[in-house]
Amino acid sequence: MAPVVGGGAAGETFHKVNFAAPRSFATAFKSDLKETLFPDDPFHDFKGKPLPIKAKKALQYFVPIFEWLPKYTRKLFMYDLLAGITIASLAIPQGISYAKLANIPPIIGLYSSFVPPLIYSVFGSSKHLAVGTVAASSLIIAATIEAKVNPIENPQLYLNLVFTATLISGVTQLILGVFRLGILVDFLSHSTITGFMGGTATLICLQQLKGIFGLKHFTTHTDMVSVIRVILKNRKEIRWESTVVGVVFLVFLQFTRFVKQKKPKLFWVSAIAPMVVVVTGCVFAYVAHVEKHGIAIVGDLKKGINPSSLKNLDFDPKYLSAPIQAGLVTAMIALAEGIAIGRSFAIMENQQIDGNKEMIAFGLMNIIGSFTSCYLTTGPFSKTAVNYNAGCKTQMANVVMSICMMLTLFFLAPLFSYTPLVALSAIIMSAMLGLIEYDKAYHLYKTDKFDFIICMAAFFGVAFISMDVGLMLSVGLALLRALLYVARPASSKLGNIPDTSVYRDMEQYPGAIDIPKTLILQLGSPIYFANSGYLRERILRWVRDEQVKKASEGDDVEHVILDFGGVTSIDITGVETLVEIRRSLEVRDIKVVIVNPRLEVMEKLIVTNFIDKIGKERVFLSIEDAIEGCNFSLTPQKECGSEES
Amino acid sequence: MAPVVGGGAAGETFHKVNFAAPRSFATAFKSDLKETLFPDDPFHDFKGKPLPIKAKKALQYFVPIFEWLPKYTRKLFMYDLLAGITIASLAIPQGISYAKLANIPPIIGLYSSFVPPLIYSVFGSSKHLAVGTVAASSLIIAATIEAKVNPIENPQLYLNLVFTATLISGVTQLILGVFRLGILVDFLSHSTITGFMGGTATLICLQQLKGIFGLKHFTTHTDMVSVIRVILKNRKEIRWESTVVGVVFLVFLQFTRFVKQKKPKLFWVSAIAPMVVVVTGCVFAYVAHVEKHGIAIVGDLKKGINPSSLKNLDFDPKYLSAPIQAGLVTAMIALAEGIAIGRSFAIMENQQIDGNKEMIAFGLMNIIGSFTSCYLTTGPFSKTAVNYNAGCKTQMANVVMSICMMLTLFFLAPLFSYTPLVALSAIIMSAMLGLIEYDKAYHLYKTDKFDFIICMAAFFGVAFISMDVGLMLSVGLALLRALLYVARPASSKLGNIPDTSVYRDMEQYPGAIDIPKTLILQLGSPIYFANSGYLRERILRWVRDEQVKKASEGDDVEHVILDFGGVTSIDITGVETLVEIRRSLEVRDIKVVIVNPRLEVMEKLIVTNFIDKIGKERVFLSIEDAIEGCNFSLTPQKECGSEES
Repeated sequence: MAPVVGGGAAGETFHKVNFAAPRSFATAFKSDLKETLFPDDPFHDFKGKPLPIKAKKALQYFVPIFEWLPKYTRKLFMYDLLAGITIASLAIPQGISYAKLANIPPIIGLYSSFVPPLIYSVFGSSKHLAVGTVAASSLIIAATIEAKVNPIENPQLYLNLVFTATLISGVTQLILGVFRLGILVDFLSHSTITGFMGGTATLICLQQLKGIFGLKHFTTHTDMVSVIRVILKNRKEIRWESTVVGVVFLVFLQFTRFVKQKKPKLFWVSAIAPMVVVVTGCVFAYVAHVEKHGIAIVGDLKKGINPSSLKNLDFDPKYLSAPIQAGLVTAMIALAEGIAIGRSFAIMENQQIDGNKEMIAFGLMNIIGSFTSCYLTTGPFSKTAVNYNAGCKTQMANVVMSICMMLTLFFLAPLFSYTPLVALSAIIMSAMLGLIEYDKAYHLYKTDKFDFIICMAAFFGVAFISMDVGLMLSVGLALLRALLYVARPASSKLGNIPDTSVYRDMEQYPGAIDIPKTLILQLGSPIYFANSGYLRERILRWVRDEQVKKASEGDDVEHVILDFGGVTSIDITGVETLVEIRRSLEVRDIKVVIVNPRLEVMEKLIVTNFIDKIGKERVFLSIEDAIEGCNFSLTPQKECGSEES
Repeated sequence: MAPVVGGGAAGETFHKVNFAAPRSFATAFKSDLKETLFPDDPFHDFKGKPLPIKAKKALQYFVPIFEWLPKYTRKLFMYDLLAGITIASLAIPQGISYAKLANIPPIIGLYSSFVPPLIYSVFGSSKHLAVGTVAASSLIIAATIEAKVNPIENPQLYLNLVFTATLISGVTQLILGVFRLGILVDFLSHSTITGFMGGTATLICLQQLKGIFGLKHFTTHTDMVSVIRVILKNRKEIRWESTVVGVVFLVFLQFTRFVKQKKPKLFWVSAIAPMVVVVTGCVFAYVAHVEKHGIAIVGDLKKGINPSSLKNLDFDPKYLSAPIQAGLVTAMIALAEGIAIGRSFAIMENQQIDGNKEMIAFGLMNIIGSFTSCYLTTGPFSKTAVNYNAGCKTQMANVVMSICMMLTLFFLAPLFSYTPLVALSAIIMSAMLGLIEYDKAYHLYKTDKFDFIICMAAFFGVAFISMDVGLMLSVGLALLRALLYVARPASSKLGNIPDTSVYRDMEQYPGAIDIPKTLILQLGSPIYFANSGYLRERILRWVRDEQVKKASEGDDVEHVILDFGGVTSIDITGVETLVEIRRSLEVRDIKVVIVNPRLEVMEKLIVTNFIDKIGKERVFLSIEDAIEGCNFSLTPQKECGSEES
């Protein structure tokens, strides 16, 4: 077995600390860059392979369809066919609904489920992700562009700007992916996303009250206060016919969701429920001439597949700020959602999803989408879950859905023109109610108060101010916490666990034993400008407290041992602070000893001459060695370095 | 001696991990709050003392004069008298010069060296800090307020806004101090300050070319490009008489600085040099009637001490944004400079300076200053160094300087009205040249490239764009780096150092020995939302690489041991990531074992049920215990937890 030989108390000879010369700047920089941008080492398979295989692997890496299509079998196709049809039946009502939410013609919603899934199936690496439009991004686009152009007065310009926003969003995603800036998405924490989704879902639900109540007048503002105020103001416009139909549909949809929750096998009930609502609505509208009873219908859906929208892209500087803003915000949110979802399904199946590659796929999908009359698409959770449950095996399910949509566009589109708006509102509302995760918020409250605050900041910011403000508020708080984490790193006093060579936090392990004449402190986190002031104060306070404690026992502090094992990096200000700490303590006749600096920290300590100043004989490999070393120096007073620099 | 019994290879019994119930939220929050705001535990002296002593100590704490004045002796006063007179001789020329830089009447500069030092001597805790006006803040105030009000066309309104900015700056400092937000100053790193000071000094030097060349027309912009362009444009206005006088003064001043550098004992030569220049200039101006030769003089200095400026404070909303901006920016910079300087002198004498208390002193000094016709003051480096070298012992030196200023205001002020502006320009320029620290920038370049970039961002941002932009750019970069530090924490593979129970980074210690069937990883930093994605990728990559390596040796990875000793905290996203990592690895028949979670991390792991999920038998106190534990489980396959949760 392994050479686990116990106890390093080896008398006079200590184990050697590695004082090798630091790596060159180029080496260290290359290594840092790799860790920052390629933590998953995507090209590890390529090493040492001949060039043709490398080229083939690279092609398969960048265009995953070359990897899965050659291995594709008829059996797999049967699974994907079923899954594809299922998600298509969801895509039609969702496409129409979310297009209404974005204030664009409903046919655009159908177009958006035809081209982008095809692109994703070529470039995408997730097997389960189903492509489609999402409510949150639809609302963000609408809210941002409405601020510049009124969609009712100037629908064509409005639509053009939506395509432009989609292009900008796609380009942003592509750039982020190519430059491997997936790290940016890391800064959207789960708590932020939970709160943001909940807040957006609440807003969207409120927006749907327009459809449910059959209101004619509404507000272009999205915040809760404005929406509730406008509903109260126009309460006399509320049509009971519309309200009754809406509530019936909503109850039906919620019931099917309930069925799915109770019996996950029956997921298809809730998957086809929106289609059932739309078809029932259409038939009902056609038979009962509901328009005459104050129930509006979608109206006017032309046959035929996506026309080109290249000429529609509008870069007029007068309006450009709106699509840029909408494009950037939706790019980030769509990415965060899409990557998180793809990843969570991948984990179930133990695959690995490369977030940066997904970004490239999403980017291409939206760029080509914006040329072919599609608006923003991503991988929505609801659709992906249905796809997964329906048994999809590869990206082919997206191709099947795409073909279904093509057939719909060629032959069935006009039929859907009878869809009552109230049915769409009920579909959206039902989907949104599922996105408000009370239990997750409660879990956060129970386990981490600060995460809960971050979540609530997003929720209330979105609900009462605006979506971007809510998002920024929450991300700002999360970053503040991250900075506080590193600005106030925990340090602790270590003691010896009896009968071992192990030293642990004395607060955590009250049985640990103090070492006479010595204070052992464990540091953690990187030491750098934002926490070095704190660390100086804190270490001096540890020493002061320990002096008082030891004095009461007739003892004294002669050595401070700093355990650097947990310190991952250090900057110039950090090194200067160490110099100051040492100077402050030496004045009081206390010697500073350093234990186990890690590779990067050691390099910085050598290059700044700190090691020379403190003396190599004051740096030890382990706490045990350090204590031995300090004890030897007690008598001769010189071995542990009394020379000053 | 301490019970340093070597080697914990104690057979079947492992050392116990502490799974005690987490602290309550209130306890943890209180402890966090204390660490965040009171890291130096300022009230540690108060514990267990009777009430009257507590009250006395509190008074002495908040108003330090009650601490040092009762112990004050005549001998100390002799030192302080000399130091006070020395800094007064520096304060007169500096006060007039910097007031000119801020475009306010020169007498305000003298007023500002009378009242604020008195206030500081009561509330300030640094013994060496000398109060006075500073060039950088003077220029910031001028640049910000000039953007709203022209100081030549409307001097009274301009002056009123300067007082208002001083008040706002003081209130900001007071609030930051009372709420102990000294942590904010921590975010100005040494690199930022070096670059900012260098950039500002360069700008100020360029501004002085107006005075040296005797130009009549100049620009209100402060950036390098504008200033150089205006000088080239007005090059025909350059007066050779003024230029010659200016260069002579500048050479003299620089020579005295050179003398001080060579012989630190002769510091007084450079300390009184500005006074010599002013007096020489006055005599020369009076005798030679220099006004007629194109050399402007200060002109018009009234006798008498500070009038009240309470009625001058102007809160007109039309202009208010300018003093608010100037106040906030100067408050932060003045604080950072003042605290850093006070602290560096305190370290030499082994005292401790409480940054938050200094903020309160600075705040009170500026608030009362703004009521008594003073503008922004702080603790400038040059003056404090002179004070320290002149042998000051207590805050009394500031009182002496203040009295000298009072006498000057009563009797000598009119004499200084003959000071040629070119002398002031030479004094400012000479002071600024000393603030450009080439060698420090070179040191940064040599030791830390990123710190160098942060420094250069401040320098070039200030020099070519504007002071606030340069500062924000640099602070932004520094924060980005801080976030990257925690977003990409170093992890390393550990191996056993032969003949010890110590495990160290195998890259750093190539002699360390691999453990069969096991991969030991050391993590570091807090684990939280911004780095959990990275950590998952990185850990899976470590495992993949290790599998390849072990496979080539006919071995396999059966256990992954995660050393949590360096992890200072963890959030919900971090715990969820651990769950994901565990699930990914269990699928591949690799067991995850955790070693030595610290107090705060253990609490979070217990409260989120992670410990229950993974099983208590998979958490060990040391790596050695963990290896022992895993080996035992190899044969019976159950002891090391094969149950799933």
